[in-house]
Amino acid sequence: MAVIIDLSIFPLDKGGSGLSSYVSRALNVIKASGLKYRLCPMGTSIEGEWDEVMGVVDACYRELEKDSDRLYMTIKVDARKGRRDGMNQKLHSVESKLA
Amino acid sequence: MAVIIDLSIFPLDKGGSGLSSYVSRALNVIKASGLKYRLCPMGTSIEGEWDEVMGVVDACYRELEKDSDRLYMTIKVDARKGRRDGMNQKLHSVESKLA
Amino acid sequence: MAVIIDLSIFPLDKGGSGLSSYVSRALNVIKASGLKYRLCPMGTSIEGEWDEVMGVVDACYRELEKDSDRLYMTIKVDARKGRRDGMNQKLHSVESKLA
Amino acid sequence: MAVIIDLSIFPLDKGGSGLSSYVSRALNVIKASGLKYRLCPMGTSIEGEWDEVMGVVDACYRELEKDSDRLYMTIKVDARKGRRDGMNQKLHSVESKLA
Repeated sequence: MAVIIDLSIFPLDKGGSGLSSYVSRALNVIKASGLKYRLCPMGTSIEGEWDEVMGVVDACYRELEKDSDRLYMTIKVDARKGRRDGMNQKLHSVESKLA
Repeated sequence: MAVIIDLSIFPLDKGGSGLSSYVSRALNVIKASGLKYRLCPMGTSIEGEWDEVMGVVDACYRELEKDSDRLYMTIKVDARKGRRDGMNQKLHSVESKLA
Repeated sequence: MAVIIDLSIFPLDKGGSGLSSYVSRALNVIKASGLKYRLCPMGTSIEGEWDEVMGVVDACYRELEKDSDRLYMTIKVDARKGRRDGMNQKLHSVESKLA
Repeated sequence: MAVIIDLSIFPLDKGGSGLSSYVSRALNVIKASGLKYRLCPMGTSIEGEWDEVMGVVDACYRELEKDSDRLYMTIKVDARKGRRDGMNQKLHSVESKLA
């Protein structure tokens, strides 16, 4: 199935500032995958087949575990059969119904 | 503290299609609050003081419980002292560090 | 509606060890509420009416913001009309269907 | 790194009742993995090495996609170097500090 996920990943052992450098390393991994993505304030949306997307999650984890002793990650997955261009379609579908 | 949240809310008793009409009702509530927000593929980011933002979460819940027997909601909160214009600043901070 | 939530809350500015002292402060707040709760490895489940439960979330936030400059929180909400004794019923319902 | 995750997975296209039969199918997959797990009201905690745990997530997804057109999943991951018996240790660490 085509899936869209929201991914947040950050170290817990680096203090509460300067986390953006870790997030940008994960985003570089996501970009290198060639999958569609969208950077959002609280996570990054990634779209593709389940295997592809979870492969990117794995690659992000491996990038950040290199120099972190504790990592936190949240993932939300919306999987839907037959969906194409899901991120754009979801946004458009909601916006078209706004008051 | 200034907070940014990611909010997802949808009914579980309406089947797996047509959920965007419920999401758009929640988004209308968010828009009416006057708080900064950003619609994303897997949730909506909202920025403001804790009380303000949680007041909007409450209003979204009350809008959707009107005609739903079962609701699911996920909320991620990033609260940081002294942050201003947090959504834009977070995005800019990550993008400025990309390869 | 009766809701069950899963709540995780911890500071991001205290490093990656010693977080349990903050979690236990939040849990003391939850216990003091008198609501049903269940401590789990990745969060605490709390059961009650929407207003009651979100009041406890608010109290947990206020307890930890006293001495934190950055907090992270995740909340999952399952709201269902007419549900009673939901945490026990959910666990029993799944366990009764196991192979 | 040793990780503990919280996993929730359920179909969105089956209505808002009777979801426990799907949850129990996922739990059977988790049990069959031999990894430590704990069923909680809002998700199931699973403990092991990153690869092992994500393999179980994959297997749960494949079990439920067999007969669902839309799936929703949330995953929280806490990864910590050198942690052993993490679920029990986390619970004990919090409980020992309660008022």
